[in-house]
Amino acid sequence: MPESCDSCKNNLENYCPKSILTYGAEYHDGSITYGGYSDTMVADEHFIVRIPDNLPLDVAGPLLCAGITVYSPLRYYGLDKPGLHVGVVGLGGLGHVAVKFAKAMGAKVTVISTSPSKKKEALENLVADSFLVSRDQDQLQGATGTLDGIIDTVSAQHPLFPLLGLLKSHGKLVLVGAPEKPLELPVFPLLQGRKVVGGSLIGGMKETQEMIDFAAKHNVKPDIEVIAMEYVNTAMERLLKADVKYRFVIDIGNTLKATTS
Amino acid sequence: MPESCDSCKNNLENYCPKSILTYGAEYHDGSITYGGYSDTMVADEHFIVRIPDNLPLDVAGPLLCAGITVYSPLRYYGLDKPGLHVGVVGLGGLGHVAVKFAKAMGAKVTVISTSPSKKKEALENLVADSFLVSRDQDQLQGATGTLDGIIDTVSAQHPLFPLLGLLKSHGKLVLVGAPEKPLELPVFPLLQGRKVVGGSLIGGMKETQEMIDFAAKHNVKPDIEVIAMEYVNTAMERLLKADVKYRFVIDIGNTLKATTS
Repeated sequence: MPESCDSCKNNLENYCPKSILTYGAEYHDGSITYGGYSDTMVADEHFIVRIPDNLPLDVAGPLLCAGITVYSPLRYYGLDKPGLHVGVVGLGGLGHVAVKFAKAMGAKVTVISTSPSKKKEALENLVADSFLVSRDQDQLQGATGTLDGIIDTVSAQHPLFPLLGLLKSHGKLVLVGAPEKPLELPVFPLLQGRKVVGGSLIGGMKETQEMIDFAAKHNVKPDIEVIAMEYVNTAMERLLKADVKYRFVIDIGNTLKATTS
Repeated sequence: MPESCDSCKNNLENYCPKSILTYGAEYHDGSITYGGYSDTMVADEHFIVRIPDNLPLDVAGPLLCAGITVYSPLRYYGLDKPGLHVGVVGLGGLGHVAVKFAKAMGAKVTVISTSPSKKKEALENLVADSFLVSRDQDQLQGATGTLDGIIDTVSAQHPLFPLLGLLKSHGKLVLVGAPEKPLELPVFPLLQGRKVVGGSLIGGMKETQEMIDFAAKHNVKPDIEVIAMEYVNTAMERLLKADVKYRFVIDIGNTLKATTS
């Protein structure tokens, strides 16, 4: 129930210690939640988001996870002011939406990736302002102290030291990916520039509605590939090879036009 | 010169990339700065702090380093609101002043230390509200999710995981000690509670004056032991054994009444 804890009272249901995830979780009655894999579902109206008419349903789908995951920290960590310079680490499902939201908020955006091959995609398709290969010391050196904040979408082990170096004083490195093992945190860069490493996890219902409305207004649309349910095993294999730009959307009800089948 | 960079323009001279430390640093003319170890000194008035009449000079001394080191993050990270619950890790020169400032700002203060022997000192002398032994899992468990923020003054390697567990959602763990090697940063607690690990390094001139005035007004006084210059080698030996409560103050000019000689 939405009024039961401090987080819920503050529209931060996502941080409620008693939250029940939309799928793969156990509901009050002991049943397992199937979320987006159901063809019908009953939900408390508090947990319903209105999709604006000009936002196609298939495009809206990934916004409800990848979208809010990057939108919420851009807002919370104050990286939503026009003219700021924001870095996005990792160009996948989360990263490509982070670039689009940050651009729509008026930021200059630098994509940071291990793959030089993603440069063209980042600059041309996603209209990022610049691109850094994270293993290229010279490129990183040249960008030292230039970023107000970074949204780091990487879930694998990776070094934070070079990313902290890219931040200006008082800059913020926000992790939204969840590496299993602890990362190495060098302390001196935090002290010397009063920098911060923070986290963020999806968003509350109020902010999710705000994000969807913002996306509709500013034409922020994830790049998707709509598939039929029958294609799901192939899609899983392709996911493992990172062979999708950038999110599969399953057309559960067979009411959308699948682009792959 | 104070107007030369963004940090200096914003009264954050301490984060100026061209800052010259008061002692042990090389000055513009190539000479070495001796700071507090000089008996006379010429300084630009911008870098002078006025010590209020009711604050004895020996007591004011440590405030200009330990004091501002903990005062600044309490302010910057929003831990200065009455009624908040603040943790202080490590009860030494920095930690004991952190307790005093946090209490003066109206916080409930919990001291977290590896040494059970410091409990009496923390609760009786420093009037902290509670005390946790950082290696006692049961004590930590009982305090899970209770702190709004933590000032961590420890310079040695130490685990952040238990400290992050003590924070409420959206809580802030601020490091002011500088361990040489990277610390292990578990990412999941950051995501799950939107928690932050940040750093802070002394403070700017404006805030240092504000801190000194606050200390004079609220009677925040570090516990000190005044020594004569002749005692300095013995003091160094005692420092290595952590045998001082909590700061030695050297009476360079022999104008104060030394408590040890």
